[in-house]
Amino acid sequence: MGSSPNTIRDLQSPALVFDLDLLRGNVQKMAGLIPGTRLRPHMKATKCTSLAREQVRVGHTSFTCATPREMVGMAHAGLGQDLLLANETVDHDRLASMAALQDSAMITVAIDSEETLRAAHKAGIQHVLIDVNVGLPRCGIEPQHAGSLADKARALGLLVRGVMGYEGHLMMVTTESEKLEKVEACMALLRDAARDVGGDIISAGGTGTYNMHANTGVTEIQAGSYSLMDTQYAQLSSPFNQAAWVVGTVISSSSKWAVIDVGLKSLGMDHGNPTIDGHAVWFCSDEHTTFSPIEGEPPKVGTRLRVTPAHIDPTVAMHDAAWITSGDAIVERWEIDLRSW
Amino acid sequence: MGSSPNTIRDLQSPALVFDLDLLRGNVQKMAGLIPGTRLRPHMKATKCTSLAREQVRVGHTSFTCATPREMVGMAHAGLGQDLLLANETVDHDRLASMAALQDSAMITVAIDSEETLRAAHKAGIQHVLIDVNVGLPRCGIEPQHAGSLADKARALGLLVRGVMGYEGHLMMVTTESEKLEKVEACMALLRDAARDVGGDIISAGGTGTYNMHANTGVTEIQAGSYSLMDTQYAQLSSPFNQAAWVVGTVISSSSKWAVIDVGLKSLGMDHGNPTIDGHAVWFCSDEHTTFSPIEGEPPKVGTRLRVTPAHIDPTVAMHDAAWITSGDAIVERWEIDLRSW
Repeated sequence: MGSSPNTIRDLQSPALVFDLDLLRGNVQKMAGLIPGTRLRPHMKATKCTSLAREQVRVGHTSFTCATPREMVGMAHAGLGQDLLLANETVDHDRLASMAALQDSAMITVAIDSEETLRAAHKAGIQHVLIDVNVGLPRCGIEPQHAGSLADKARALGLLVRGVMGYEGHLMMVTTESEKLEKVEACMALLRDAARDVGGDIISAGGTGTYNMHANTGVTEIQAGSYSLMDTQYAQLSSPFNQAAWVVGTVISSSSKWAVIDVGLKSLGMDHGNPTIDGHAVWFCSDEHTTFSPIEGEPPKVGTRLRVTPAHIDPTVAMHDAAWITSGDAIVERWEIDLRSW
Repeated sequence: MGSSPNTIRDLQSPALVFDLDLLRGNVQKMAGLIPGTRLRPHMKATKCTSLAREQVRVGHTSFTCATPREMVGMAHAGLGQDLLLANETVDHDRLASMAALQDSAMITVAIDSEETLRAAHKAGIQHVLIDVNVGLPRCGIEPQHAGSLADKARALGLLVRGVMGYEGHLMMVTTESEKLEKVEACMALLRDAARDVGGDIISAGGTGTYNMHANTGVTEIQAGSYSLMDTQYAQLSSPFNQAAWVVGTVISSSSKWAVIDVGLKSLGMDHGNPTIDGHAVWFCSDEHTTFSPIEGEPPKVGTRLRVTPAHIDPTVAMHDAAWITSGDAIVERWEIDLRSW
């Protein structure tokens, strides 16, 4: 672009855009519901320290990360007051790069095995959390072995801050009463593990279950997608509004369909096709989405449209930056500065 | 990493790797089958000028691109002898950035409408190709209108080099005889359009139909994925071998499953889950794939494994660089230098 874009019509496409008012609305709503350190916003969804600063503005001071790169980037941005790597790694150099930040940042790393414990200890990590399997077949130690792993960590001189357990398999249960019952059953396992482990933290949850933890004993919720949302999370009843899109330009138009330059290289596709308001999406290619209007003629070449991602987390990770909008006006540009690993 | 990695066991994961011998084998096989300018290798699959140089070494001199960024990057890398943007754009600044290269590079841009023609002309583009719809509901003018658009382009002083038509809807037809018949029917439409349009080029095809054009009149094939391959293209009978993987590290292991740190942020997911030789993939999360061995115990924490992508093009686009291997040894690092738009 020759000069700074003033409106979404000036953007080179595909372009990731975040609506500042809607994003702030989501962030404020969540802070009202789950204030301060009761929420540990997850940076995997947004990968953007500028967005994290919006979460700090409303009172959150602790953050969740999925990658060492997110941890290091948050600390370098001055957002290292209490960072949790809610994921396992045995990468010595990356663990050491996090350990090197411990003078100025609070770094806590999840472990779920003797191997991940030894790797953290060898790299000089001081604080760990025991990751407990609560039903999702992914990382996490069996609940009955959590206490023993904590004992081994303490024997090596590490501080064990508590437990985490991610009920990711329940995020999309659509019946609220059924979801509540299942979340409570998972969290009973996590509480048992927490009793054996000790420490202050019982960390769990996500945007799909943030409101299910009133009676679970969980001390903090790891939610991230709520600030931007996507069409999958929109299927749940929630107070959060869609605040992120990929803006595209119609590059071809026939009597039956049109093609926009937003394709599967700019959209996370694991939850299926994106949507376009007022249109039916036919399919996505690398750099195209073919679609047709629900009523009337396909839009003309040059028309700008917003494409709504089905899964926000991988969508954001495909873009260098997000353009921050107020209505159609561009007010800022935020680097997606926590990408890659 | 503290020092340069010597083997895939030293790589920080997830890490994109290309096997140099297998890649060169694929490139040589294709050059034997479709030599020189009969192949116009597609850079959307690989986004890597170092890989393009391998294609130049075996005699290809013309290239296909899907984005202006790929076009400009190829020209800057000295690979601009004959570049085709096989896609439409009305972005004036990007068209102008391509037009600015025309003293030292041959730039040809696809058009399929008066709007895309006017945008190309306004930006100073000198050479165009008429993109013809041959059955895939995406870009491309109706065949019967191609000649008229070419006339309008010539009236504006542009050189019309010919036509292209992508039979993308036929790539995965698995019965060879049925595919051949359908490709020939599509290409009859393209030949009719070519007769009306004039010029020397009839460009079509892809890795799924590269061997279907002996009698179609097509002068060049746009194939790219053949050099690296993926599990979807492997379903077709083809002489090309898998040459690309995402290497990961097992970070968690239970009695029933293991988890590797290769997730849907490092894998194109639009063709479904990846595969891991000898294992069954259960599901992918942002930074994880859960899997279990077909026989025996799940692999231990720290084990390195190769994950085979279901769709190579978007997978490559998620990585900064590819590590080039010979067996398990790392011999080079290639930037994925044509990413984004």
